[in-house]
Amino acid sequence: MKTAATEMFGIEAPVFAFSHCRDVVVATSKAGGFGVLGAAWMTPEHLEQELKWIDDHIDGLPYGVDMVFSSTSTTVDFKESPRDILPKEHREFINHLLDEDGVPPLPEDEEKGWYAEYARNLAFSPEASEALLDVALRHPVKLVVSALGVAPDHIIKRVHDHGAKFGALVGSVRQAQKQVEAGVDLIVAQGSEAGGHTGQITSLVLWPEIIDAVAPVPVLAAGGVGRGRQMAAALALGAEGVWCGTIWLGTVESELTPDMREVLYAARPEDAIITYGYTGKSCRAIRSKYTEAWLRPDAPQPLKTTPLQSILSGEPFRRVERARRKDWMTYSAGQIVGRVNEPTTVKNVMYDMILEYAEAIERLAQINEA
Amino acid sequence: MKTAATEMFGIEAPVFAFSHCRDVVVATSKAGGFGVLGAAWMTPEHLEQELKWIDDHIDGLPYGVDMVFSSTSTTVDFKESPRDILPKEHREFINHLLDEDGVPPLPEDEEKGWYAEYARNLAFSPEASEALLDVALRHPVKLVVSALGVAPDHIIKRVHDHGAKFGALVGSVRQAQKQVEAGVDLIVAQGSEAGGHTGQITSLVLWPEIIDAVAPVPVLAAGGVGRGRQMAAALALGAEGVWCGTIWLGTVESELTPDMREVLYAARPEDAIITYGYTGKSCRAIRSKYTEAWLRPDAPQPLKTTPLQSILSGEPFRRVERARRKDWMTYSAGQIVGRVNEPTTVKNVMYDMILEYAEAIERLAQINEA
Repeated sequence: MKTAATEMFGIEAPVFAFSHCRDVVVATSKAGGFGVLGAAWMTPEHLEQELKWIDDHIDGLPYGVDMVFSSTSTTVDFKESPRDILPKEHREFINHLLDEDGVPPLPEDEEKGWYAEYARNLAFSPEASEALLDVALRHPVKLVVSALGVAPDHIIKRVHDHGAKFGALVGSVRQAQKQVEAGVDLIVAQGSEAGGHTGQITSLVLWPEIIDAVAPVPVLAAGGVGRGRQMAAALALGAEGVWCGTIWLGTVESELTPDMREVLYAARPEDAIITYGYTGKSCRAIRSKYTEAWLRPDAPQPLKTTPLQSILSGEPFRRVERARRKDWMTYSAGQIVGRVNEPTTVKNVMYDMILEYAEAIERLAQINEA
Repeated sequence: MKTAATEMFGIEAPVFAFSHCRDVVVATSKAGGFGVLGAAWMTPEHLEQELKWIDDHIDGLPYGVDMVFSSTSTTVDFKESPRDILPKEHREFINHLLDEDGVPPLPEDEEKGWYAEYARNLAFSPEASEALLDVALRHPVKLVVSALGVAPDHIIKRVHDHGAKFGALVGSVRQAQKQVEAGVDLIVAQGSEAGGHTGQITSLVLWPEIIDAVAPVPVLAAGGVGRGRQMAAALALGAEGVWCGTIWLGTVESELTPDMREVLYAARPEDAIITYGYTGKSCRAIRSKYTEAWLRPDAPQPLKTTPLQSILSGEPFRRVERARRKDWMTYSAGQIVGRVNEPTTVKNVMYDMILEYAEAIERLAQINEA
């Protein structure tokens, strides 16, 4: 296979794997694709550790990092506990529901230790982004992706000077055009069926619109891609490759706990719903008692100011994880979660994808010979 | 091109055009596709007139009809005016908003004449469906499609005895399986980006799931298809053809008023939103003051019992049409409405679609040669 994306990075198959897990990054690059580490909420120390591990295991193959480049700071200024900055009404609402349903509270040391660190990592600032970029550029990363927003000129220049490409994830034609004007080399166009923060336009409609709007800048197709026929569809629509996230969550390499993995195996496409309860923004995640709670008539409005609702979610998520309460667990996932049904490996997912892709191409050829 | 769908009907291109307009039906069949007349809310007399016109103009080419086969009756029992069966709160809410915004009320003769007929046609029953089918089967229809619900055995048998195929529109794997168990010959799988009543799963994710679930029954791909690359994607995903509705609305052949056509030309994909204000069910239609009205905090809950909300919508829609108030106009349309931008013809749409399809196939071949 030969597309602008395979040529850009010298890879065999234009399959880009977004993952918070270094094992998935390494396994996809080794299987002929391209792994991208989601680094947005890591500390510089943590990112250094992950990239060193990747360098030690990836056999010199290309990989990338994905982070948030913010132009404004979100300060999280709390004294002892993240609770101090959250509205009492919100905390009490969700914690009361968990109490009532028999989910034990956090031990006090967790609240002050783990929870405080968790909350601090969610706040971002230009300085924090640049500190992460400093780490990334000490490693042979070949692609830096902005998960949210347009990066400042000097950031894109630093990445280019490093010899790497700069990409950006977008959910609309307008966002794509802004990114191209800012000088990105690659657009990741994400349809509404994607997991995480997502827009309203579906992949089938959005991809070709963005592809036409930013040509000749290459576009990777994201949102709803987890099998070979979807990859064939993406290339038929004009994409230069695919960008997948959800499909890796069920692999043995993924970062998820065994409980969370089981939640994903059980989820159908219609369980990957839009919730505002997770982060305060439109986010596709698995339906659970947690997402349902925020739809109750007595629920307070989710906190819109980033990252308050995410910080708020931290405590209940941790309570639920400790109590192993799968009925309350949620995680960002797209509608393709319906294909995440049993333990498998990254290599198997890649193999199945390429095989089904080849079958789809063969079928198309037969249709058109006649 | 050769697929199960082109073979089933002896057509050149597997492009099925759903339209309420006989001109679109004839023009698509003449352009090598297959026209399907939306007959659900016609009287038998009206349908007879439309099918006679089609027979007189279609040069013996195949075409179909689409209707609702209900197993339960919806009785609409009003004395003088449809208003009699609607909650006063709902009528007053929406009419008051129109009054306030300067949209004149209906003349009294319209209210008792046009509106009463409009409302009666919206009610359905097994007897009404069968009366429409009686008409259809006096014509050389080659396909009857159930737009909603599983048809009784004897209906499917009547269609088969006529030498025609029976199809069904579905929005989930479960619905598709039920239809196949009932004996349909063809499934139309419709993703959430479609216009009209629609489910939650997007085309990219839904189509291959349904295709696999009902194989070897052929599947047409609906929802988000309006250009050749989307057709190539549908076939890559395993569909035997495409089923399009929205893309014909902007053609000079379409049934829409010039005002409504202009509303569609101006609409972007994100303007094709889900509303409950149109029919009481999840329906994708163009955002306007009418759809926004039903999202106001002081709006009553849309009427869930079919066809009450549709009957309710009749009066304001007519007021708005008479007053030529485009800011209040809405119409069922899918996200592909972003491609409906200027007057064109059915023939041009078909030509562009096939041309872009061929280019997409050629591009795929180049990608895979390498």
